[in-house]
Order: sequence, then C-alpha cells, then structure tokens
Amino acid sequence: MLRTITLAIGVACAALPAFARDQVSDFTLDNGMQVVVIEDHRAPVVTHMVWYRAGSADEQPGVSGVAHFLEHLLFKGTETLEPGEFSATVAANGGRDNAFTSYDYTAYYQRVAADRLELMMTMESDRMVNLQLSEEDILTERDVIIEERNQRVENNPGALFREQMSAAQYLNHRYGVPIIGWRHEMETLDLQDALAYYTQFYAPNNAILVVAGDVQPDEVLDLAQKYYGTIPANPDLPERTRPSEPPQTSARRMTFSDPRVAQPYLTRSYLAPERNSDDQKTAAALTLLAEVLGGAQTSVLNQKLQFEQQKVVYVGAWYSGTSLDKTTFNLTVVPVPGLSLEEAEQELDQAVADFIETGVDEEQLDRIKMQLRASQIYARDDVEKMANRYGRALTSGLTIADIQTWPDVLQAVSSEEIIAAAEMVFDKRKSVTGWLTATDLTAEEITQ
Amino acid sequence: MLRTITLAIGVACAALPAFARDQVSDFTLDNGMQVVVIEDHRAPVVTHMVWYRAGSADEQPGVSGVAHFLEHLLFKGTETLEPGEFSATVAANGGRDNAFTSYDYTAYYQRVAADRLELMMTMESDRMVNLQLSEEDILTERDVIIEERNQRVENNPGALFREQMSAAQYLNHRYGVPIIGWRHEMETLDLQDALAYYTQFYAPNNAILVVAGDVQPDEVLDLAQKYYGTIPANPDLPERTRPSEPPQTSARRMTFSDPRVAQPYLTRSYLAPERNSDDQKTAAALTLLAEVLGGAQTSVLNQKLQFEQQKVVYVGAWYSGTSLDKTTFNLTVVPVPGLSLEEAEQELDQAVADFIETGVDEEQLDRIKMQLRASQIYARDDVEKMANRYGRALTSGLTIADIQTWPDVLQAVSSEEIIAAAEMVFDKRKSVTGWLTATDLTAEEITQ
Repeated sequence: MLRTITLAIGVACAALPAFARDQVSDFTLDNGMQVVVIEDHRAPVVTHMVWYRAGSADEQPGVSGVAHFLEHLLFKGTETLEPGEFSATVAANGGRDNAFTSYDYTAYYQRVAADRLELMMTMESDRMVNLQLSEEDILTERDVIIEERNQRVENNPGALFREQMSAAQYLNHRYGVPIIGWRHEMETLDLQDALAYYTQFYAPNNAILVVAGDVQPDEVLDLAQKYYGTIPANPDLPERTRPSEPPQTSARRMTFSDPRVAQPYLTRSYLAPERNSDDQKTAAALTLLAEVLGGAQTSVLNQKLQFEQQKVVYVGAWYSGTSLDKTTFNLTVVPVPGLSLEEAEQELDQAVADFIETGVDEEQLDRIKMQLRASQIYARDDVEKMANRYGRALTSGLTIADIQTWPDVLQAVSSEEIIAAAEMVFDKRKSVTGWLTATDLTAEEITQ
Repeated sequence: MLRTITLAIGVACAALPAFARDQVSDFTLDNGMQVVVIEDHRAPVVTHMVWYRAGSADEQPGVSGVAHFLEHLLFKGTETLEPGEFSATVAANGGRDNAFTSYDYTAYYQRVAADRLELMMTMESDRMVNLQLSEEDILTERDVIIEERNQRVENNPGALFREQMSAAQYLNHRYGVPIIGWRHEMETLDLQDALAYYTQFYAPNNAILVVAGDVQPDEVLDLAQKYYGTIPANPDLPERTRPSEPPQTSARRMTFSDPRVAQPYLTRSYLAPERNSDDQKTAAALTLLAEVLGGAQTSVLNQKLQFEQQKVVYVGAWYSGTSLDKTTFNLTVVPVPGLSLEEAEQELDQAVADFIETGVDEEQLDRIKMQLRASQIYARDDVEKMANRYGRALTSGLTIADIQTWPDVLQAVSSEEIIAAAEMVFDKRKSVTGWLTATDLTAEEITQ
C-alpha cells in the first residue's frame, strides 16, 4: 500500500517541470504591519489570520503561560463585542475560528466565505487594541487553562517527561519553559500580567496579517489599510532578542518515572541550529537527516532496529528548523518488551554510528527528495496550510524569499552534507538523554 | 593535632553556660532603610557595610552578570568623587574596602578606624544614588569582569562543571545562571543595562546598613539619618519574588569532560529547602546532616569511604541554608586512582543508604553540636564575620530574631530529625549527578 502511494507520487512529480512559485503578494502598512496575500481562487473561501511575533518565549520570567492565557482572553469582549460574540459571529456567518500559541508566535484565524473578509477584519482589528477584561474573566479563564494543562500535561506522563527534557536541554533560553506554563505560575496569573503582555506585544508593528484564498491583493490591502492601518504603532515595542544559550558542554541524562507509563521509551534531544534567513542549508541538511534516519518505515533506523534486528517497536527522528532560536534534533526509541532501555540506547547509538560510517544511500535520498517535493506540491492544494506555513516562518525570523527557496534548498542537499550535519549535531555534550519508565527506579538502578 | 584542637574547644564550651546574645540594635529609617548596629568595643575600629537586597538572581533575563558588573562600576565616580577616589580615600585613612555579589545580595564594605565612620557614610550614601558612568567606564570595566570570568571560570574545569550542574539543577529559577554571568551575555552588557539595575535596586528602601565595632547605636543612627535618611525611597521598588521551581520529577545526570582535569570526581546535588523566617528546623537538620555525613575527617562518609574502604581520596557533604529561595545539598566524591566514577558513585549511594539504615551515632552528634557551638562563639570574636552573617541572613529573607535563635535551633536537632531530613532531601528525582572527567568519553562510555 505504501509502495503504491510512493510510486504514484513519483509519477506526479515527474510530470511537474519545477516548482511553481506560490501566488503571494507582500505589503507593509505605514504603521509597520506586514500584509501577506496568498491567492487561491478555486473556492470562494478565505482564511484570515493575524500572527503576533510574540509567543511563550517572549514572556517575562515568573509568568509562564501568559501568552497562551492571553490567547484565550482574546475571545472575551471588547468595547463593541460582548464576551463570546466574536466566535458566535464567525459561526453565524458559516465560518469557524480558532487560535494557537507557540514559543515564537500567537495566531488567530478564521475561515469564512470570501465575502465575509471585511467582517473578520472589523472584529480582529478591534480586539488587537480594544480588549476589555474583567477580574471575573481572569478567574474563569485561568481555571480553563489550568484544566487544559491537567488534560494535556498532568494526565500524560509523556508530556510531563518532555517538559523536564526541555527544561534540561535549555540552560538559559525560555524554550526550556513549557508553552502552556508551569502550573504553579499559571495559578498566579492575573489581570495585570495579561494586560502587560497585551500592551507590550499586541500592536500592528508586531503583527502579520495573512489572508489566503479567493481574494485580490489590492482589495485585501485596501481593507487592511482601513481596519489595521489606522491603529497606531507601539513606539515602545522591544527589540526581539531572547537570552541565548551559553556553550553546552555536558552530556545530560534523566529518568522520569510514572506508574501510568504503559510503554517505557527513551528520547535523545540535541541542541540544533534553526533555519536562518538567507542561511537555510544546515537546517535543510538536518531536515533530510531526520527523514533519512527515522522519517518513515523505510528509514535507516527503522529498517535496522525495527525490521532487521527487531529490537524496537518504534523509532523516529524529528527535526523542525522553523524556530526563531536554537531548536532540537530528537531521536526516540521504544524497545520491544524485554529489552532494557540501556540496551535499546546502545543499539540506537550503534545504529547512528554505523550510519555515519556507511553514509547515505543515494537511492533512498532520491526517494525522500521526491516525496518532499510531492508533499510540498500537494501542500499548495491546502490554502489553510499555506497560510500557516507563511505565518509560522515569518514569525520565526524568515522572509517570504526564504520560504519560497526552501524547497530548492532541500533538493540541493547532498549526501555528504547530510553526514556532515549528523557529525555536527550528534554531539552528546549538547544533548539530553531521557528515559521514561513505568516504575520508580531504586537508587541502585538509577546509579547504574 | 586536630584532636587536640577539638578537645580544647570542648573545654572552652563546657565553661560557657549558654549562648550570650549578640549586642545588636536594629532600626528602620523613615525611608525604609534598615540599620543594624553590632557593638564590639574591644578595638577602636568599625566595619561599615551596605547590603542591597539585590543579587544576580534579581537580574532580568539576558543580562546575566549585570549585578556583579554594577558592583565593579560603583568604584567609578559620582558627582563629587573621581573614579577610584573612593578606595583611595579609604586607604588614605588607613582602611580597606571591597565589595561582593552573590545570588541574593550585593554588599559594599569598609573597615576603618572608628572615628572615620562618618566619612565612610558620606561616600557610601553618595554612590547609592549619584553614580556617574561614562561609556568608557563601561568598556573598560566590562573587559575587567570578562577577564575575571576567564580566570575564575574558563580556566577552571571544576568551575565550568559547577556552572553546568547548577543550570541543570534549576529548571526555572535564576540560581541556575552563574553570578558572574554567562560569558556571551557579559560581552553585551552596556551602560543602559547597568543603569537599569542601579535605578531599580539601589535605594534606601532596598538596603541594609550594618555597622559593627566600636560604636554607639544612637550615634550610628544619627549619622545614618543624616547621610542615608535623606535619600528618598524608590516608590517603584518591585516586590522581591523570583520565578520558582516547578516540581522536579526527573533524576538528571551529566558528564563534563575537559583535558585539563587532573583528578576526576563526581558531585551529586539535590534541590533542598532553605532557612525560612520562623521556620528553620528543616534547614538546621540539613546543616547537621551535612556535618554528620561529610563535614570533617571523622564524618560518616569519610570514615567509611576514605579510611575503612580506602575507595576515595576525598568525600564531602555541603549545605548552606542561607538563601532566599530553594538551595542545594551537595555530595562530592573523588575516587582513588583506578576506581571508576561509576564504582565510586555506587559506593557513595551504598554508604548513604547504610547511614539512613543505621541512624546517627549520638556521640558523633554531640561532638558536632559542641563544635558548632564553639565555632559560633569564636565567630563572635570576629566582628567582621558577625557583620557578614547579619547582612547575608537579612538579605536572604531572615530576621535578626532568626539569626539569634539559629544556634539554639541547631542544638535542638535530634538524630531522628537528621534521618528524616536525609530521607526527605535524598530524592533522586530532584537531583543532578555530575561526572567531571579528564577525557572526552566515547559514545559508548557515555551510554553505559
């Protein structure tokens, strides 16, 4: 089944001469707000998004979770909208809306019929500056985010484990603090914390409007000027620099135990470079390295550890370079029952060392590149995904040119560059190795 | 030799019926500045100190080292003092002066003839608010602190190792950031960073004046009122709360390798409670635990690992509860040549487990308590040490009453409380185990 799909994609790609450029227009309003229009006229719908260059990593110390908290609070009222009226209006107009927060951005989106775009801009521009919050809103919504944390993190040993891994990976940067927040800090978030973040970061000169779908760029620009262009820039917007990492010089390990763990596993994370504007080659090599090593059933680690040696029930490699600051390259291994984490880790290390020794299989690399090309072409079919891709990259310090050359940069990576990237990134001194186990280890077991 | 000294102390203590209270007077000026006078009329000298409730853990993210940088810069000029004139004046008056920065405080002191106290206050109160800094001062002094870091940290594998240990120990709190600063952040410290810290924290309502020596409390108060009392309080002084730790749930390990390491060793640090006002019992039990386990040649770990088994050339236990926020309890072991760190760690864990099983030797505990009592009595002989003790405790959230009851709290600790403290603090989930080795470990060695 998989093979068939792969072949089908291969054929589709071969028929395409090269990457067509996305139909993207880019403007900047006088107040500094960036406007990106992605045209797609196949259906009379539009995705309207506002991305703020502010995420959890832009928070002040002690108020972790406030970026995400504020995202929730933006659905409360403004001077002209009742609490809840925003989403109700979107729904009444046949659309849907949502929002999301990450380390580097907070984004709000609505997907509606194209002729409702102006209404979306009316409401979205309104809540950029006119948010009205009461003490009661704070108390109610704080319970909501704490409950969200309960469900997503506290009830999930893997999520708790990942939090501790990130905290150990980053010695200085706020990527070590969870996006949703440390629980004990979430419990103290108040109106003042939310408003401080709002006042500092929610402003047109810190925002990117992404409109994708059945629209004309000049019409979008006119509307954007009318609704967003009239909001004054925040003259006190701080420069976007976060505390960066000191040299990481110590291989770190940790064991997290929780009786709810059904399947013990281990994760290794390495500090890794991110995509940088005009400098995406290393990130491209790391992206391909993750694919070659553990991106699919046919990848090197899967073939060796899962199918040949039958040592693991799962192995994966993961890297995402779309990040404002240093990111991580992750390897995860779930051993077969009966194999210890220690043995599984040795097998993993051996397999990675063998891979570096052996080099990249050119046929596998060609196949992966073709799959990447195909998935990028297919992605252009999904206008919402396109809007996401642009918003995410632009709030992570990349430019439209970077986004558009990225597929070519990926295609140009050689097998030698992949091995060089592996040798660079697999530096244990910059790594954390985590074991997730079901039972509390005894002192002796932890020692060994 | 040691035995003789111990006996001598024993005799001296037996002759003392109980703790005499220190001769301490405490005032608060109208602007919120605390004044503490410790009388000691045996010599016509005085120690004049100003302690700020601001240390490296009060810094903003991204400017690590600025507290210590500012400490250096306070020896530049004011409106009335030329750069360097402060120390030159102290020296010309037969005194000496210095300053120091820690996580929780920055302190300035001079020791001079008692009749020069007013001159010290004139100058110290002046630089509390009238500091004049030029861009050139910044550049020059920044080179000085970077060079200080080179000497103290970069040239010292043990210091680099401890930095990485602290960073791994603290997931959220700034005790994980070195007092001297991360080098890459120190290199960017500028005039604005220094002035921001100065403006925020250097104010009478954030300072404690400690005057110790041949002085009368009312005379000190009059002078303090004249020089410090006339400085307005900073109405914007922020509440002193730092980001606190989330639950620590994962045993962490790290290996730091440096070819300059002459003698490999291992350190285990556990997150531990600190002394809190009116609640010093746990800290007292931990203080005694450190003494019982590894405070001297006759301690449990030393006796067992060093003398009986001859497995280690050094073992020590260390705890200091004088800290505003959560501190650490540390164990360090240097194995004999030929014994691996892994084996040494197993021996350490076994010895600690045996100790908890066996309990505290009452004779050893009595001996330690007597030594503590003696050292506290002898400390009262050193007026400078007394001033330090008060300043340090007061900037760590303790009161004068806490300082004065501390010796009694220590004496009241039972052997059961020590074992209970051991069982509480030796929780691997809150620990970091660090190995310092001479050579880069191979991937395989790190894996094991």
